[in-house]
Amino acid sequence: MIQQKVQIVEKILDANDQIAMQNQQNLDNHQIFAINIMASPGAGKTSVILKTIQMLQDKMRIAVIEGDTAAVTIDADKVSALGVPAVQINTGGQCHLDASMLDRAISSLDLQQIDLLIIENVGNLICPASFKIGTHANVVIASVPEGDDKPYKYPNIYRGIDTLILNKTDLLPYIDFRKDYFKTGIELLNPGLEIFELSCKTEEGFSNWINWLKSKVSNQTNR
Amino acid sequence: MIQQKVQIVEKILDANDQIAMQNQQNLDNHQIFAINIMASPGAGKTSVILKTIQMLQDKMRIAVIEGDTAAVTIDADKVSALGVPAVQINTGGQCHLDASMLDRAISSLDLQQIDLLIIENVGNLICPASFKIGTHANVVIASVPEGDDKPYKYPNIYRGIDTLILNKTDLLPYIDFRKDYFKTGIELLNPGLEIFELSCKTEEGFSNWINWLKSKVSNQTNR
Repeated sequence: MIQQKVQIVEKILDANDQIAMQNQQNLDNHQIFAINIMASPGAGKTSVILKTIQMLQDKMRIAVIEGDTAAVTIDADKVSALGVPAVQINTGGQCHLDASMLDRAISSLDLQQIDLLIIENVGNLICPASFKIGTHANVVIASVPEGDDKPYKYPNIYRGIDTLILNKTDLLPYIDFRKDYFKTGIELLNPGLEIFELSCKTEEGFSNWINWLKSKVSNQTNR
Repeated sequence: MIQQKVQIVEKILDANDQIAMQNQQNLDNHQIFAINIMASPGAGKTSVILKTIQMLQDKMRIAVIEGDTAAVTIDADKVSALGVPAVQINTGGQCHLDASMLDRAISSLDLQQIDLLIIENVGNLICPASFKIGTHANVVIASVPEGDDKPYKYPNIYRGIDTLILNKTDLLPYIDFRKDYFKTGIELLNPGLEIFELSCKTEEGFSNWINWLKSKVSNQTNR
């Protein structure tokens, strides 16, 4: 039984990777730079996305895909309110997005009109790590109140990512968070990983993240 | 393929429920009251457990089972340092505990010497909701910095629980958290659910949670 389950899971992952490659090809053909944002529930994925839109929407065309485990459009509504196209994926209880969900969501967007596609994965530090979806960068948002030991406890999600955001730095004065300990854990899992420390509340540190995104989008649209 | 996967998942869940019933019977036979603590990563599961041990260990015999997705003993070490038996379950990347994992962990404890068994599930707001493990109470720890919209976004985990803790209330002055909105969401999913608001840092509100536990343990040991 277990062996059969493992085989099926492997087949599903193989099929997923195929579709992820097709998704990336599709995005490349349209010169879209796409990021997959993963985080624990409440780390501030939506807040970072909203602030990013506000800072970039006069410089590039942005669209957002919102992954939710239930049929709630709270996040998609907030994005739409900024005048940016937003598509919601309801995973129906599943703990992660997969490539075919992204494929369906992409097909409902006008890809000719997008430079930056931001995908908010389901809030989860475990499951999304196993599923490529076809984006150009995997980003994890950690947050100060989650604690400095998360890289040690949830190592898989930090291994495969391209960029890390440490959010809610405005709360550092009120929380015992050892930044050195946190960064040592990250360095062990993903040497040299770029970390953007920022606060959506004060906007401190946000410009570094914005500049990184601008540069990536520029490279993709000038290919 | 999908249909086959669904059938296998159903069989796994049925088998799991059987073992969960056996676990509970085993715990009942030893007059142990057991709780399953679930939460998002960083909500403060371990902090609540450590503070609970400190407040109760001169009144009852406690043991802890720590569920982790990786082979790290950070939490188990902290519990052991308080002189309480601690067993670690490494799920090997799985996003939840299941009943057979608990069965194996229980068998490594001296059940004659335990009144209260605290099980810390893997940090995840989605997966643990689907797997009974055989405890007497399912407890979710929410935390103020996670945000007030979590009941709306992750409804399943709040539906089947017996008690809810709202942790990190000391951060309320620094975070825009609408307690009414949060509680309305909980009430819709789980009418009448008891909520303990507390802070591990200031210990404010902790006594209500401790009194609840004392009463439950007393009922079970006097059966």
